[in-house]
Amino acid sequence: MNHRRFACFIAVALAFAFFGFSIQADEGMWLFTDPPRKELKEKYNFEPSKEWLDHLRLSCVRFNGGSASFVSGDGLLLTNHHVGMYAIHKLWTPDRDLLETGFLARSREEELKCSGVELNVLMSVEEVSERIEKALAPFSDPAERARRRRAEMTAIESESFFETGLKSEVVTLYHGGLYHLYRYKVYTDVRLVFAPEESIASFGGDPDNFEYPRCDLDVCFFRVYEDGNPAKTPHYLKWNSTGARDGELVFMAGHPGRTERLKTVKHLEYIRDVEMPAAMDKLRRLEVALLAFSQRNAENARCAGIALRGTQNGRKARLGMLAGLQDPEIMKIKRDEEETLRRAAADDPKMAADFEAALHTIEKTLPAYDKIRVEYEMLEQGEAFHSTLFNYARTLVRMADELSKPNEERLREFRDSNLEALKRGLFTDTPIFPDLESEMLSCSLSMYTERMGYDDPLVRRVMEDCSPSRRAKLLVRGTLLADADVRCGLVEGDAAAVAESNDPMIQLARLVDAPARAARKTYEQAVGEPRNRAYGMLADLRFKLFGESIYPDATGTLRLSFGTVKGYWGDGKWEAPSTTFGRLFYTAEMHQFAPPYSLPKEWIERRGRLDEMAPLNFVSTNDIIGGNSGSPAVNRDGELVGIVFDGNLASLVWDYVYTMKQGRAVSVHAGAIVESLRKIYDADRLADELQHGSL
Amino acid sequence: MNHRRFACFIAVALAFAFFGFSIQADEGMWLFTDPPRKELKEKYNFEPSKEWLDHLRLSCVRFNGGSASFVSGDGLLLTNHHVGMYAIHKLWTPDRDLLETGFLARSREEELKCSGVELNVLMSVEEVSERIEKALAPFSDPAERARRRRAEMTAIESESFFETGLKSEVVTLYHGGLYHLYRYKVYTDVRLVFAPEESIASFGGDPDNFEYPRCDLDVCFFRVYEDGNPAKTPHYLKWNSTGARDGELVFMAGHPGRTERLKTVKHLEYIRDVEMPAAMDKLRRLEVALLAFSQRNAENARCAGIALRGTQNGRKARLGMLAGLQDPEIMKIKRDEEETLRRAAADDPKMAADFEAALHTIEKTLPAYDKIRVEYEMLEQGEAFHSTLFNYARTLVRMADELSKPNEERLREFRDSNLEALKRGLFTDTPIFPDLESEMLSCSLSMYTERMGYDDPLVRRVMEDCSPSRRAKLLVRGTLLADADVRCGLVEGDAAAVAESNDPMIQLARLVDAPARAARKTYEQAVGEPRNRAYGMLADLRFKLFGESIYPDATGTLRLSFGTVKGYWGDGKWEAPSTTFGRLFYTAEMHQFAPPYSLPKEWIERRGRLDEMAPLNFVSTNDIIGGNSGSPAVNRDGELVGIVFDGNLASLVWDYVYTMKQGRAVSVHAGAIVESLRKIYDADRLADELQHGSL
Repeated sequence: MNHRRFACFIAVALAFAFFGFSIQADEGMWLFTDPPRKELKEKYNFEPSKEWLDHLRLSCVRFNGGSASFVSGDGLLLTNHHVGMYAIHKLWTPDRDLLETGFLARSREEELKCSGVELNVLMSVEEVSERIEKALAPFSDPAERARRRRAEMTAIESESFFETGLKSEVVTLYHGGLYHLYRYKVYTDVRLVFAPEESIASFGGDPDNFEYPRCDLDVCFFRVYEDGNPAKTPHYLKWNSTGARDGELVFMAGHPGRTERLKTVKHLEYIRDVEMPAAMDKLRRLEVALLAFSQRNAENARCAGIALRGTQNGRKARLGMLAGLQDPEIMKIKRDEEETLRRAAADDPKMAADFEAALHTIEKTLPAYDKIRVEYEMLEQGEAFHSTLFNYARTLVRMADELSKPNEERLREFRDSNLEALKRGLFTDTPIFPDLESEMLSCSLSMYTERMGYDDPLVRRVMEDCSPSRRAKLLVRGTLLADADVRCGLVEGDAAAVAESNDPMIQLARLVDAPARAARKTYEQAVGEPRNRAYGMLADLRFKLFGESIYPDATGTLRLSFGTVKGYWGDGKWEAPSTTFGRLFYTAEMHQFAPPYSLPKEWIERRGRLDEMAPLNFVSTNDIIGGNSGSPAVNRDGELVGIVFDGNLASLVWDYVYTMKQGRAVSVHAGAIVESLRKIYDADRLADELQHGSL
Repeated sequence: MNHRRFACFIAVALAFAFFGFSIQADEGMWLFTDPPRKELKEKYNFEPSKEWLDHLRLSCVRFNGGSASFVSGDGLLLTNHHVGMYAIHKLWTPDRDLLETGFLARSREEELKCSGVELNVLMSVEEVSERIEKALAPFSDPAERARRRRAEMTAIESESFFETGLKSEVVTLYHGGLYHLYRYKVYTDVRLVFAPEESIASFGGDPDNFEYPRCDLDVCFFRVYEDGNPAKTPHYLKWNSTGARDGELVFMAGHPGRTERLKTVKHLEYIRDVEMPAAMDKLRRLEVALLAFSQRNAENARCAGIALRGTQNGRKARLGMLAGLQDPEIMKIKRDEEETLRRAAADDPKMAADFEAALHTIEKTLPAYDKIRVEYEMLEQGEAFHSTLFNYARTLVRMADELSKPNEERLREFRDSNLEALKRGLFTDTPIFPDLESEMLSCSLSMYTERMGYDDPLVRRVMEDCSPSRRAKLLVRGTLLADADVRCGLVEGDAAAVAESNDPMIQLARLVDAPARAARKTYEQAVGEPRNRAYGMLADLRFKLFGESIYPDATGTLRLSFGTVKGYWGDGKWEAPSTTFGRLFYTAEMHQFAPPYSLPKEWIERRGRLDEMAPLNFVSTNDIIGGNSGSPAVNRDGELVGIVFDGNLASLVWDYVYTMKQGRAVSVHAGAIVESLRKIYDADRLADELQHGSL
């Protein structure tokens, strides 16, 4: 290290001390290839071995946008009820509502096969940055670079798939500072083993969502099968019913979906002032419409239940994020971080210039995005057409176009590596509720009309001289795409079958396809690509200046976080690190067992069997975000001590900045799971499997 | 009538025939001074006598923004439960929730005195157009004209009050084409006699609001007192339990709040594209916040109940209005109306020029309004500070300023004629729920931040470096204005007491007062005044061209509508003109008696006593709008046959245009009221009073 660089480090270190910036105590969603060895050693005197890391990685599972882990050698899998909920919902029949009643397979034969579920286990990681950089080197035009990058990524993925038979994905880390090739083993035969009633899984409902103290049994179990038999999963987490104790070090390994921790202050202000309000407007529209729809009768309430919960969850999460962004204290942290980086770069003219150029580029993308934002969100992101049936139609229309192109020129989601999953989604016989489809489509068409203006020529063509609600009804009544066989026929037929179809939903998808693609192209050229490069530069700078102390933003891929089980002062009152079964019953009584604080009959009848002092949920300082739901919490010995299912209100701003003053991850305690299985559900067979590690 | 004018009438008549414009069959909210004699004679062979009109007018009562009527000579008053609800809500104590349990006074002594209610009976009407025109004649500057008009109106009101002792209001009709002086007798000692449980009063809740078929007992009874005794009310409506029959002519007399039937197409487009979306955004924010707040616990739900219902009602109403405006068929009617007026005026160059000038002026006010809209709505209309406590603070701050000015120079709401009502509102001991105040204030401050932009200097000063939710909490915790004595002290003290107060809510009201007043002034000069004049010109033109066939837009003052009890074809199915008690029970059963379809215990137990074939609610073609709620429905003989409480979905567009294809007013049948009183509530004493007309 030369003197100059050293001096710079001193200045930075001082700045950190002054501003309280730098990696905060338990911050970070770390790559398994680059864990926070220094922090763990210094603060916890813990050094993870390669075996420890590999075993944990291979025990982890990506589950439909959430996380899970193997908990026996026979393919048994633990995740959150709210992660498994979509799969459980699909098992609904007129005489079976497993969300309401819960489910326990008393034998292997009773395990219920789920449709449309794909699980991924990360088998290997390979760095491919050099190959991609080399492919891009000759080009400077952003659009060309984007095309080349896409082509190279696709080539790498195809080669890898061809060689290994494993699902292969190139992951863009540090906003393009680093590229990894991830190879996954895929499981598609997934069967439901146990799910509690939703009333106990999400006890407290929307009011308690993102809150603590908390008393939820937000878990369920599935089993993966291969060739009709339980899969052999030698890497699984040993169950530790003693669970996490106050002050204990715990790790969480899972798939955080997305963070935006590098975002510049200007960019965050744009999100605060423009994007977040628009997103919340959309969610509020939907929530109000779904609530009104649900109130009409019990059948509507059932059909709309999942969509409503998802909408409320999104609204509450964004409310917390927006509250963070509107909090001057939080924005000051971000401003100080930016200033610290500026000062750190100041000593090196090239770095200083790069820093300012990156900030300038990002700032320029804001008005560029503003110009196309509404069209891009409405048409390409499909916010104007909030409907499963429209999504089918768009996939069919685009598939017909895209499959006629060479693999690397296709839109990313239509490349060979994704085709199988795409078709699975299209062919699954998911129940469609026409009234719900009409309601949601009407709501989004009305938003589209408002946002683009009633006299927009495309709006006029979309509406065909109808009001939004009438148009929605006609589209849903007229389309045949609710029938999986019809969808299947259109995929298997030639492209002309789609092009000539007079299905109104397909016609609508065709009508908006060209402008939607145009908006996507403009977005990529004027916003996505320059922004990626600028954030890549910033990430690069940070890496050069601060070395390994930096982790990349979340990308929906496997990460490791560490933290301590720890209470906190919340709004004038000490919140203990864990809650108990006693508190669950006390809370239900306080609310006179009225929803969302009702309890299943068995819980009330068998209350006496439980130790009311035993811990139920606990909080820790682990740095998590949406997508981590279902991540196992493990101790130093790699044993499962809990499963994370939520963050508290103060954690919602973690999208942008981690603070551990009040922010906490909320988990179900491992002991509470076994206790409930044995005492409430008579599920000793399942509890035995957990505790023995095999069937 | 000269030939030219006659030719023009022919053309217009043809145009009407072709376009389906003109007064539609049962259209109109008519002045009692100018009833639709021609239409009634031609279509119904009915000629209302002066006595008939006077008796009906003097039996009608304006009730807190709604309508009511006397139904006995001893001051007994019938209105809707949802109109009386606010007064009933104020009677709440920890052991008494009359909205939930309902109420029946078994003797006069048990009648419950309500606070903060003011009832008005229209005693006389006098035209004062000439006097106002004369006062305005020398002036052409809009601001000066507005000031002069205000001064003259105030002078007329003051003189009238001095002379008669009656509450006196100058009403602007035809957008300034006509001015009437209305004199009201005021009642303030109002006592609750009977209210059913809210579950039966608004059976079906939000899902059934603005819908038909319908099964609600949306009624309640009050009695007005004078000097501690039941007031003598010789003008009251005779009860007719046979009620309204299919095909029968019925009149409704009440206080429609506001219609916008003259609005130009450009103006309607602006409402459709800008104002309505903004208003709905505000309502959705509030609805979502109130729902989440209510879900936390039963106490919250109770506190927020009325605000939530009001918000849902507003959202659903606007949804219907917006659907109408987004419906090309409706806009075509408006466009044709405008074209018809243009052609009718074309033969007279002065008229033609006036017409185009008016349209042009209105069009010019749209961008002018657009420039100040957000500031005006947020600051002057108080949308940024949705809180009862803030309203108190603003009233106190402004009162201190305004009372130091001569009467005619004050803001309208602070003139002598309004002072008493204003003080009554300020001194009433209305319960304040601090958590609810914080929630609503937080919600509106957040909207204010978003709409004006986070970096707006006034926003920064309002927020005092806090997030909206923290700022709202601090304001509500810090203010002492929840205490009526504190408010009273500030009014009774000198102006300095308010100016020097360090109450944070008062300080906030002071901070925003100057910009709010500035926005109001700009609004009046650039929008309100020119718009009034232009719509006045259009109204004038219409009057000149179409004579008495035109009624003025609703103004919250007494009007008469006529119509027929009549079913309709709704969405492919014939809706019968009335529902029955049988349908009520059937609907409750279909929904398994779950809220909002639950029934009070007595209704279930005593079901057998009711004739299930007897009519409960009925629909008619009467032209009504918000504010008509509680209007009596009377027959040719002036007897009460029902009470209107709602319009169906297709009627919501009546704000802008009346269509009777599907739009209907929905009423409770007079027979059903007496039947319920006797069979369900054992309220024979009250039923006897109705049927005998006296105690």
